[in-house]
Amino acid sequence: MKKKIIIVGGVAGGATTAARLRRLDEDSQIIMFEKGEHISFANCGLPYYIGGVIEKREKLFVQTVEGMSSKFNMDIRNLSEVIKINREKKTVSVKNLRTGEIYDESYDYLVLSPGARPVIPSIPGIDTANNLLTLRNVKDTDAIKNFIDDNKPEKAVVIGGGFIGVEMAENLHELGIKVTLIEMANQILAPFDFEMASILHKSMIEKGLKLILEDGVQSFENNGTKVILNSGKEIDTDLIILAIGVRPESELAADCGLEIGPRGHIIVNEYLETSDPSIYAIGDAIEVLDYINGKPTAIPLAWPANRQGRIVANNIYGKKEKYKGTLGTSVVKVFDFTAASTGNNEKTLKRIGIHDYEVIHIHPGSHAGYYPGASQISLKLIFDKKSGKIYGAQAIGKNGVDKRIDVIATAIKGGLTVLDLPDLELAYAPPYSSAKDPVNMAGYVASNIIENAVETIQWYEIDKIVENGGFLVDVRNPGELKLGFIKGAVNIPLPELRNRLNELPKDQTIYVYCQVGLRGYLAARILTLNGFKAVNLDGGWKTYSSVYG
Amino acid sequence: MKKKIIIVGGVAGGATTAARLRRLDEDSQIIMFEKGEHISFANCGLPYYIGGVIEKREKLFVQTVEGMSSKFNMDIRNLSEVIKINREKKTVSVKNLRTGEIYDESYDYLVLSPGARPVIPSIPGIDTANNLLTLRNVKDTDAIKNFIDDNKPEKAVVIGGGFIGVEMAENLHELGIKVTLIEMANQILAPFDFEMASILHKSMIEKGLKLILEDGVQSFENNGTKVILNSGKEIDTDLIILAIGVRPESELAADCGLEIGPRGHIIVNEYLETSDPSIYAIGDAIEVLDYINGKPTAIPLAWPANRQGRIVANNIYGKKEKYKGTLGTSVVKVFDFTAASTGNNEKTLKRIGIHDYEVIHIHPGSHAGYYPGASQISLKLIFDKKSGKIYGAQAIGKNGVDKRIDVIATAIKGGLTVLDLPDLELAYAPPYSSAKDPVNMAGYVASNIIENAVETIQWYEIDKIVENGGFLVDVRNPGELKLGFIKGAVNIPLPELRNRLNELPKDQTIYVYCQVGLRGYLAARILTLNGFKAVNLDGGWKTYSSVYG
Ligand SMILES: Cc1cc2nc3c(=O)[nH]c(=O)nc-3n(C[C@H](O)[C@H](O)[C@H](O)COP(=O)(O)OP(=O)(O)OC[C@H]3O[C@@H](n4cnc5c(N)ncnc54)[C@H](O)[C@@H]3O)c2cc1C
Ligand SMILES: Cc1cc2nc3c(=O)[nH]c(=O)nc-3n(C[C@H](O)[C@H](O)[C@H](O)COP(=O)(O)OP(=O)(O)OC[C@H]3O[C@@H](n4cnc5c(N)ncnc54)[C@H](O)[C@@H]3O)c2cc1C
Ligand SMILES: CC(C)(COP(=O)(O)OP(=O)(O)OC[C@H]1O[C@@H](n2cnc3c(N)ncnc32)[C@H](O)[C@@H]1OP(=O)(O)O)[C@@H](O)C(=O)NCCC(=O)NCCS
Ligand SMILES: CC(C)(COP(=O)(O)OP(=O)(O)OC[C@H]1O[C@@H](n2cnc3c(N)ncnc32)[C@H](O)[C@@H]1OP(=O)(O)O)[C@@H](O)C(=O)NCCC(=O)NCCS
Repeated sequence: MKKKIIIVGGVAGGATTAARLRRLDEDSQIIMFEKGEHISFANCGLPYYIGGVIEKREKLFVQTVEGMSSKFNMDIRNLSEVIKINREKKTVSVKNLRTGEIYDESYDYLVLSPGARPVIPSIPGIDTANNLLTLRNVKDTDAIKNFIDDNKPEKAVVIGGGFIGVEMAENLHELGIKVTLIEMANQILAPFDFEMASILHKSMIEKGLKLILEDGVQSFENNGTKVILNSGKEIDTDLIILAIGVRPESELAADCGLEIGPRGHIIVNEYLETSDPSIYAIGDAIEVLDYINGKPTAIPLAWPANRQGRIVANNIYGKKEKYKGTLGTSVVKVFDFTAASTGNNEKTLKRIGIHDYEVIHIHPGSHAGYYPGASQISLKLIFDKKSGKIYGAQAIGKNGVDKRIDVIATAIKGGLTVLDLPDLELAYAPPYSSAKDPVNMAGYVASNIIENAVETIQWYEIDKIVENGGFLVDVRNPGELKLGFIKGAVNIPLPELRNRLNELPKDQTIYVYCQVGLRGYLAARILTLNGFKAVNLDGGWKTYSSVYG
Repeated sequence: MKKKIIIVGGVAGGATTAARLRRLDEDSQIIMFEKGEHISFANCGLPYYIGGVIEKREKLFVQTVEGMSSKFNMDIRNLSEVIKINREKKTVSVKNLRTGEIYDESYDYLVLSPGARPVIPSIPGIDTANNLLTLRNVKDTDAIKNFIDDNKPEKAVVIGGGFIGVEMAENLHELGIKVTLIEMANQILAPFDFEMASILHKSMIEKGLKLILEDGVQSFENNGTKVILNSGKEIDTDLIILAIGVRPESELAADCGLEIGPRGHIIVNEYLETSDPSIYAIGDAIEVLDYINGKPTAIPLAWPANRQGRIVANNIYGKKEKYKGTLGTSVVKVFDFTAASTGNNEKTLKRIGIHDYEVIHIHPGSHAGYYPGASQISLKLIFDKKSGKIYGAQAIGKNGVDKRIDVIATAIKGGLTVLDLPDLELAYAPPYSSAKDPVNMAGYVASNIIENAVETIQWYEIDKIVENGGFLVDVRNPGELKLGFIKGAVNIPLPELRNRLNELPKDQTIYVYCQVGLRGYLAARILTLNGFKAVNLDGGWKTYSSVYG
C-alpha cells in the first residue's frame, strides 16, 4: 500500500528521513514542510561563514529545494509552516508563508524534526536592543553578516559559552572585532569538567578575548549598546550575540497532546515513536536516553539527528530498528585548540549520584616528540574503579584530539573497558602517533589504578593536604621548577630518589608529583616498593596548573 | 626471591620490558645487552632524520644508557653482543665489542628482543657495490647521511616498496635527489590491495619519482653505479638503498634449540614464552597469530614490540597475561598522502582460502566539504557477507585517514561488525568530520550489501561485462564525463533517470556507476524499485580510474 508521509522540518533530521524514505520506496508520497526558505543547509557551518572562513554562501546549502525534489522525487514545500497537527483526522494544517494561505494535508505517518530554537530570556531592555541577534538558520546568519557589514562593529558581546557562543566568539574575533564572552557558570563548554575547560579559558584570554565567568546579564541599556551584568559590571558593545542554549521546538507536538518531557522535549520510545504510533519525532526536539547512564537527556547535535532520521525511515517501513541512546560525543575548534569529549563528565556523574568513579589525566604528545609538529594532548578518562567501565573522556590539544575521542567513543560502543585500551592496536608512524598511542597510555594509567599499582589524588586535593602538613615531593629536575611548582614541595629529582630515600619520613604518606604524572608514577612505584606509602598527583603540574597556574 | 633477568636487545621491545620490570620490582637484577652503541632509539624516525625533517640527531634517542640506567637502576651494557645461550646452565655468553672480551652471565629469566635485520640477497655485484646501504639502526643512518654529505648523490635507487623503502624514497626525494623505486611485485606497500596502492603509485609519479614495478634487480655493475634489472633495463645511480624486507634475528635462539618457525621466527605461546619456559621472546623476531584469521604471521612493527614487552614483564612476575595476536594496523606517510590499514586485505584472505567476503570502496570527504581543507578519503572495507565480521580496512587520503583506521581497528577489537558501524557516535564539527562520519558511511554502505538493498560489482569486473554486451549507465552529470568515463556507458544523469526508464532494457541487468558510488547506489535503488535488475559499480569512477584512469 502506498504510504503518504509528511515530514515537518527540512534540515538535518527531516531531510535525512526523506532521502532514506525514498530509497526504501519509490511510490510513497513524501511531503517535506520547512517554514524557512532553505532546506538541508549546513547549520554547523553558519558561524564559519560569518567569520569568513567559509567564503561562499552557496556552500552552506547541501541540497536545494529544486535539486532534492528532482533527485528524490519528493514534494518539498519551503516557507510552509505546519501550524497544527490534527491527530484524529491524521492531517496537519499548513500555513503558506508566501501567501498566508492555510490548508490541510493528510498523512499516514508524520515525522517531526522541528529542531530547537535559541532561548531568549526576558531580560530588561532586550526588546529594545536592536543590536542583539541569535543564530540558528540561514536567515539569522544573513542578519548577523549584514549587521556586521553595515555597522562595522568594533566590539561585540557574546552571551553564553556553549558551542555556538564559543564558535561565534572565535569567528567575530577573527573578523577583528573585540569580543567579550559572558558565561553564567564558572566555565565555558559544559561537556568538559572545570579543569579541562580551564585550558581553553587561558588560551582564549591569550588570544585577546575577554572572558567573564560566573556572571550574567542583568539588563541591556541604550538599545543594547550597554550590557549591565549581575555583578554591576558595564560593558559597551556594538553587537550582541545571544547564545545561552536552545529550547526544543515542541509546541506543535504539545498542542496536539503528544507526551512532552519535563524540559519541553517530545517523548519517544526506542523506535522513536511518540505517544501516537503514527507520529515519529527526532533530532533536537526530542528527549533521548543517555547511552552511559540510561537516564533521559537531550543532546542537540547533528549526528543523532542524522542517525535518527534513517532509523525512523526504516521503522516506517516495518524494520523495528532501535535508537540506542546518545553518547554525546562532540568536538569544537577553539582557536588553535580542538576540544572533544564523549560520554559523561564528572559533573554529570555527580548529578545522577554516581560518586565511586576514578579519574585520570594524562598529557601525551599527539605524535612522536621527535617528529615536527607534535603537541600535547590533555586527555581525561573517567571510569568505574571496579569494572573498568568507561564513563567518559575529554581531550584538549592542538592535533589528534578528535581521533583519540573517536577511538574511545568506539571502545565504549564496543563494550570495552579501560583494561582493554592497552590492547587497541592503533596505527603508528612518527607523524601520527607513538608506539603507545595516547589511548593505550590512558588505558595503562587507568589499569594501574584498578590494579592498585598506584594511588593518586586530584588537582583540587593537594593544596589542602600540604596545608595540613602533608609531605610533598616534586620529582622534576631543578630546571623545571621555573615552570612553577606547588607550594610546600621538596624537590628530589627522580634519578636521585633511590639515593635520598633517607630524607623521607617513613611514618607519613609521601605525595609526589612531576610535570605530567609519568615520573610521579615512577617515583610512587619506587617508594611503594621501598616500603613507603606513596601517592601520585594525577596529571602532575600540568593539570594542577591549568587551574592554579 | 630476587630475580635476575637478562634482556637481549635494548630498543623497542627490550627497553620496554626493562622499564616495566623495574616498576614491578625494585630488587630484581636487570641486565640489558645491546650489541649496538645506542639503546632506546627511534627506529621509526631514522628515515626522517636522513631526509632532514628531524633536524637534530639527538632527538632520535628516547633514552640514553646513562639516563635509563640511573632512572631505572639497571645494568645496561651497550656494544655487548650476546653470542650464545646456554640453556642448561641458564647463562648467556656475551662479547664486549669494545674489548673483544667474552664472558658468561647467568639468568633466572631471559627475554629476547633482538629484532630483525634487512634481507641482503646474493645478487651478482652486491659485494662490490660500495654505494649500497641498508637501514636498521643509528649506525646505518649515520652511514647513509655521511654518504649523502660526502658524495652529494644526484640519483638514487631504492630497492623495495615496503614501508622503509617508501619512506626512504620520499626522504631522498625531499633532499633533491632523483629517486627510482624498484619493486618486484605489481604494487608497493603489501598491506594494501592493488587498486588502493595504485592511488599512491600515481601520486608518487606525479611528485617526480620514477616507479618501476614487477621488476627485480639482476645485478649491480661498476661498483653499484649501474643497476641491471631482470627486464634488461639499466639504471645509473649514485646511491642504492636496499629495503626488500627484514629477516628475524633468531640465530641465537635457533642455536640453543628453541623452536623456530618456517620463516625463521622464534615460536612463542600466548604468554610469549619460547619452547623454554625461562626464555621469553618478543618483537620483530617472533611469530604471532593474526588477530583476524588466527593463523601464524610476522608483523615487524613497533606497537606489537612495545605491547609484548610489557606483557612479558608482567608474566615474569606471574601475571599470566595473554598477547591476543596482531591486527597489523599500520600507517605511512607518502608525500601528501597518508595510507593506513588494519586487519586483512583481499590478498591475505585469498591466500588463506577465504573467498566469500564482500568489499566496499567509498570516497567521503575528510570533513564537511563546505569547510576549507577537506579532501577525499578512499576507504575500503572488507567483511563477511553473512555475519558482517570486519576482516580489514584500508584508507588513503590527505587528512583524517589514520583516525578512520584507528576507529575501525577499535571496532574490530570491540567485536563490532559492519552493521554496528552506523551506530558509532563520532565527534562532529565541520573542521573534523561530517554528521555521518566516513566510518558511519562505510557501515551504511556495507549494511546495504548485507541486507541486499543493492548489488555491486568491482572495478576489475566491469570492463569484461561491457565487452560481453552488458548495459552500463553513467548517472553523472554530462559535465563530469570530462573526468573520464568507462567505455561503452550510456549517460543518463541521475535526476533524469525516473523519466527515462523507457530507454532501458527490461530483460537485461542494468549496470550503473557514478563518480564515487553514491549516486550509482541511488540509481540502483530507483531501478530496483521500478522492477529492473540493477547493479552498482562499487566505488564508482574514482575506484575504477585509480587503476584504469
Ligand atoms: C550555529 C550552529 C552550529 C552548530 N554546530 C554543530 C556542530 O558543529 N556539530 C553538531 O553536531 N551539531 C551542531 N549544531 C546542531 C545541529 O545543527 C542540530 O543538532 C541539527 O541540525 C538538528 O537537526 P533537527 O532536524 O532536529 O533540526 P534542524 O536541523 O534545526 O531542522 C529543523 C527545521 O525544522 C523547521 N521547522 C520547525 N518547526 C517547523 C514547523 N512547524 N513547520 C515547518 N518547519 C518547521 C525549522 O525551520 C528548521 O529548519 C549546530 C547548530 C547551530 C545552529
Ligand atoms: C627505518 C625504520 C622505520 C620504521 N618505522 C616504523 C614505523 O613507522 N612504525 C612502526 O610501527 N614500526 C616501524 N619500524 C619497525 C620498528 O622499529 C620495529 O618493529 C621495532 O623496533 C621492533 O622492536 P624489537 O625490540 O623487536 O627490535 P629492535 O627495536 O630492532 O631492537 C632490537 C635490538 O636488539 C639488538 N640485538 C640483536 N641481537 C643482539 C644480540 N645478540 N646481542 C645484543 N643485542 C642484540 C639489535 O642491535 C637491536 O638494537 C621501523 C623500523 C625501521 C628500521
Ligand atoms: C544530505 C541529506 C539530505 C541527507 O541525505 P542522505 O541521502 O541521507 O545522505 P548522503 O547524501 O550522505 O548519502 C547517504 C546514503 O548514500 C549511501 N552511500 C554513501 N556513499 C556511498 C557510496 N560511495 N556508495 C554507495 N552508497 C553510498 C549510504 O549508504 C546512504 O544510503 P542509505 O541511508 O540508504 O544506506 C541530509 O543529511 C541533510 O540535509 N544534511 C544537511 C543538514 C545537516 O545535516 N545539518 C547538520 C550538520 S551541518
Ligand atoms: C621509552 C621506553 C624505554 C619504554 O619506556 P616505558 O617506561 O615503558 O614507557 P613510557 O615512558 O612511555 O611510560 C609508560 C609508563 O608510564 C605510565 N604513564 C605514562 N604516562 C603517565 C601519566 N601521565 N601518569 C602516570 N603514569 C603514566 C604508564 O602507565 C606506563 O607504566 P606501566 O607500564 O607501568 O603501566 C621504550 O619504549 C623505548 O625504548 N622506546 C624507544 C624505541 C622504540 O619504541 N622504537 C620503536 C618506535 S620508534
